[in-house]
Amino acid sequence: MGRRIDLVADLGEGFGPWRMGDDAALLDVLTSANIACGFHAGDPRIMDETVRACAHRGVGIGAHPSFPDLAGFGRRDMGLSAEEVRTDVLYQLGALQAIASFHGASVTHLAPHGRLGNLVAVREDYAGAIAEAAVRVDPSLIVLAQDGALADAARAAGLRVGIVGIADRAYQDDGTLVPRSQPGAVIHDPDEIERRTVRMVVDGVIESRGGVAIPVACDTVLVHGDTDGAVALAQRIRVGLERAGVEIAPLAGWLE
Amino acid sequence: MGRRIDLVADLGEGFGPWRMGDDAALLDVLTSANIACGFHAGDPRIMDETVRACAHRGVGIGAHPSFPDLAGFGRRDMGLSAEEVRTDVLYQLGALQAIASFHGASVTHLAPHGRLGNLVAVREDYAGAIAEAAVRVDPSLIVLAQDGALADAARAAGLRVGIVGIADRAYQDDGTLVPRSQPGAVIHDPDEIERRTVRMVVDGVIESRGGVAIPVACDTVLVHGDTDGAVALAQRIRVGLERAGVEIAPLAGWLE
Amino acid sequence: MGRRIDLVADLGEGFGPWRMGDDAALLDVLTSANIACGFHAGDPRIMDETVRACAHRGVGIGAHPSFPDLAGFGRRDMGLSAEEVRTDVLYQLGALQAIASFHGASVTHLAPHGRLGNLVAVREDYAGAIAEAAVRVDPSLIVLAQDGALADAARAAGLRVGIVGIADRAYQDDGTLVPRSQPGAVIHDPDEIERRTVRMVVDGVIESRGGVAIPVACDTVLVHGDTDGAVALAQRIRVGLERAGVEIAPLAGWLE
Amino acid sequence: MGRRIDLVADLGEGFGPWRMGDDAALLDVLTSANIACGFHAGDPRIMDETVRACAHRGVGIGAHPSFPDLAGFGRRDMGLSAEEVRTDVLYQLGALQAIASFHGASVTHLAPHGRLGNLVAVREDYAGAIAEAAVRVDPSLIVLAQDGALADAARAAGLRVGIVGIADRAYQDDGTLVPRSQPGAVIHDPDEIERRTVRMVVDGVIESRGGVAIPVACDTVLVHGDTDGAVALAQRIRVGLERAGVEIAPLAGWLE
Repeated sequence: MGRRIDLVADLGEGFGPWRMGDDAALLDVLTSANIACGFHAGDPRIMDETVRACAHRGVGIGAHPSFPDLAGFGRRDMGLSAEEVRTDVLYQLGALQAIASFHGASVTHLAPHGRLGNLVAVREDYAGAIAEAAVRVDPSLIVLAQDGALADAARAAGLRVGIVGIADRAYQDDGTLVPRSQPGAVIHDPDEIERRTVRMVVDGVIESRGGVAIPVACDTVLVHGDTDGAVALAQRIRVGLERAGVEIAPLAGWLE
Repeated sequence: MGRRIDLVADLGEGFGPWRMGDDAALLDVLTSANIACGFHAGDPRIMDETVRACAHRGVGIGAHPSFPDLAGFGRRDMGLSAEEVRTDVLYQLGALQAIASFHGASVTHLAPHGRLGNLVAVREDYAGAIAEAAVRVDPSLIVLAQDGALADAARAAGLRVGIVGIADRAYQDDGTLVPRSQPGAVIHDPDEIERRTVRMVVDGVIESRGGVAIPVACDTVLVHGDTDGAVALAQRIRVGLERAGVEIAPLAGWLE
Repeated sequence: MGRRIDLVADLGEGFGPWRMGDDAALLDVLTSANIACGFHAGDPRIMDETVRACAHRGVGIGAHPSFPDLAGFGRRDMGLSAEEVRTDVLYQLGALQAIASFHGASVTHLAPHGRLGNLVAVREDYAGAIAEAAVRVDPSLIVLAQDGALADAARAAGLRVGIVGIADRAYQDDGTLVPRSQPGAVIHDPDEIERRTVRMVVDGVIESRGGVAIPVACDTVLVHGDTDGAVALAQRIRVGLERAGVEIAPLAGWLE
Repeated sequence: MGRRIDLVADLGEGFGPWRMGDDAALLDVLTSANIACGFHAGDPRIMDETVRACAHRGVGIGAHPSFPDLAGFGRRDMGLSAEEVRTDVLYQLGALQAIASFHGASVTHLAPHGRLGNLVAVREDYAGAIAEAAVRVDPSLIVLAQDGALADAARAAGLRVGIVGIADRAYQDDGTLVPRSQPGAVIHDPDEIERRTVRMVVDGVIESRGGVAIPVACDTVLVHGDTDGAVALAQRIRVGLERAGVEIAPLAGWLE
């Protein structure tokens, strides 16, 4: 059986009169969407439209909860307690679930946004709070994360974990990402990103800056839609994966 | 078989550092709670505490969605479209459902708050939007309402409707409430309120200002907890009903 | 002495990570700006950047207060009392004034936004509340309005009033605007808009749909920046006015 | 000439339908008020009522700006940049100034709230941002602070600084406060608090836990109003100071 992969991006990140990214174009490329739930972006109308579009096209619906920080787009560490994180995530997850139910669909995954998404890789209290919230609400939920505290906590709670692969960041020889503060941390060349993505998905390895082949897990590839170039790149990644014989399908249908 | 009734009040109407009403005292009196869902009151922590307390005591958990108006406590008509009402109600209902799921409980009823609660009795577009939202998310939900557009729309959608009885307002001979602008519109005497409540529940009638016995339906009696006197009155109503042989039990357990 | 006119547009209508319109391009065309004050758009960072840019270029700084409605962009009638309008406008006006002071500038005009801007033409209670707020905070403020209740109340309070001219809307023979619900209400042809603007400014008349020359006052022409075409049209209007010998200068410098 | 002192408390810390503390009782005790400006508490109506009451009684009006965190009451470190602090403080300060102008009064001091108030004692970037904002908007403003970065930055900017004295906390021999995590950190005995306050104001010393007399500056004593006992204590402190011959008067009238 051939290799399978999911393609995921953040959708519905407008608010009120404002929009962000080209959601319509991305919907032709994706198999799963992380949908903003109102705390960093995404009012109930935008959530409703985004869920409707995903349900119509068979794109997997995921909750993308955040710190409560509209002005800061969820990018600031707000110093919340784990209890605040647990209740804020429950609130946002449930809000999206009801909207999905209205459209005859369901939320199949959960992927924390922004600074919360960064912190759950290292803060065990946040990771545990989110895993416990998710498993009690719906034990069939998939948690999207990179390796780290949230992935561990989700597995320990009995949840499936979808590891998110990143192809546009440089790696160090020890398998960690080159910090953004260093030159060359982000890869911009579309050819190289496509090549790295295909290798990551097909062979399970990514090449470090020093030329070392690092084994990496990857169930879903995160693509971006906030610029025209980004959508074109996402399309190109999809085509590259298909040419390499990879089946592209929503995570919830095949992840074990 | 004897008469049965539900006692309901609004709970969890604080926000952040602020509290409103004596929720702890009311929890000893009630069988159902309308729980604020964050739009007029009720942040995720307060929702979580309130749901936990209700679940622990077997008090029925209801969503109490509002217009998005924290500063105005949901008392202002915000000129929303039915589509805005539908999506705002879905959002709030789902948020509470997830919190209830976390505590091993479920939301069993829905009761619009404040100005939205007034408008749904007469605005068929709002009523239809809410009934459709509720039935698609959970067809076992009970809609709490007075007679009017929402009760009609909910029944048409196949939902159960719990009619809310009001014992502290004066009625005109034609069966409508005396407008609040008129003297004597609100009844303050605890003896009289208790007597009217018992008669409304046991005999299904309420006496108008002109002495006419008006037939009224009543599945649940709305009590208040925002003053010390109110809690004492609620306790007294409960005792009065019990003495009259009425069984007091959560609506979801017996409403057909 | 030749005719003088001000050109004004709404600026700073982003929020958090979102932007609206091409403020940078508009700043080359305008002489005055209506700056969002945080209630329908415009967080403190965006207000600060916009004020700084206006101060740097000598563009007149105006407060653009709104109903408190970020999700609805201030387009919904929220049923506020005149007291709520007065205090909300004071709050927003003062916030912008402090930011202007920081940059060594000052707020020279006030122009209500969106639905509030529509209602002040007919609601005398709102108009009076705003005029009183403005005159007590700074009697040198100019109030921007179309003819109506706010213009009347501002003049009665001793404030200067800048009448806003509209060149892209069709007029009826009685001098009122053709309602937006009717075909032809909005004029889209750039040639025609330019021609109508110049005639309105130079001759003080605008031609109705029926061919009647209607006398209109106009101290400032409202242009838009929310599409590329809109900015080009604003530039064209400016050039057309300059060719007709009209001096284009900030209102605060010459309005009596 | 005898000793003079100001008595200050936080006022107007309600929001929408909620209230906090007994502002009416405190207004009989205070000479200055720190008024919430909408970010942690205090909507425009409450700000307006509070300013009106202070102006009527000659109580000094102070801005009490906060991190933008209504749900957390400004008690959480939100990880803001100094630029975010500067613009948020400008916004809140200006909002209160306009409301004060409406009532024929003016804002005479500035006192950061909650976590922001803690951080400005140690974060020089925040302290500098606030001092620069204050001095550019109104160089006659007094900054209320304890010794630390904000007091230093305000003096360097040419602003007057009012040092806030604290009589209900235990001191260590080195002159620093006993951390709240240690037993005995907070003093609850009204007799002792009154005695310590009088000594701090009259003699300029406070006694450490180890019995050392520590010299402390004190221009204003912070009292509390969030419980009945707190108001009684504030009244007692006022009477105690008056008996000791101290003149109690608003800071702005006498601070050099």
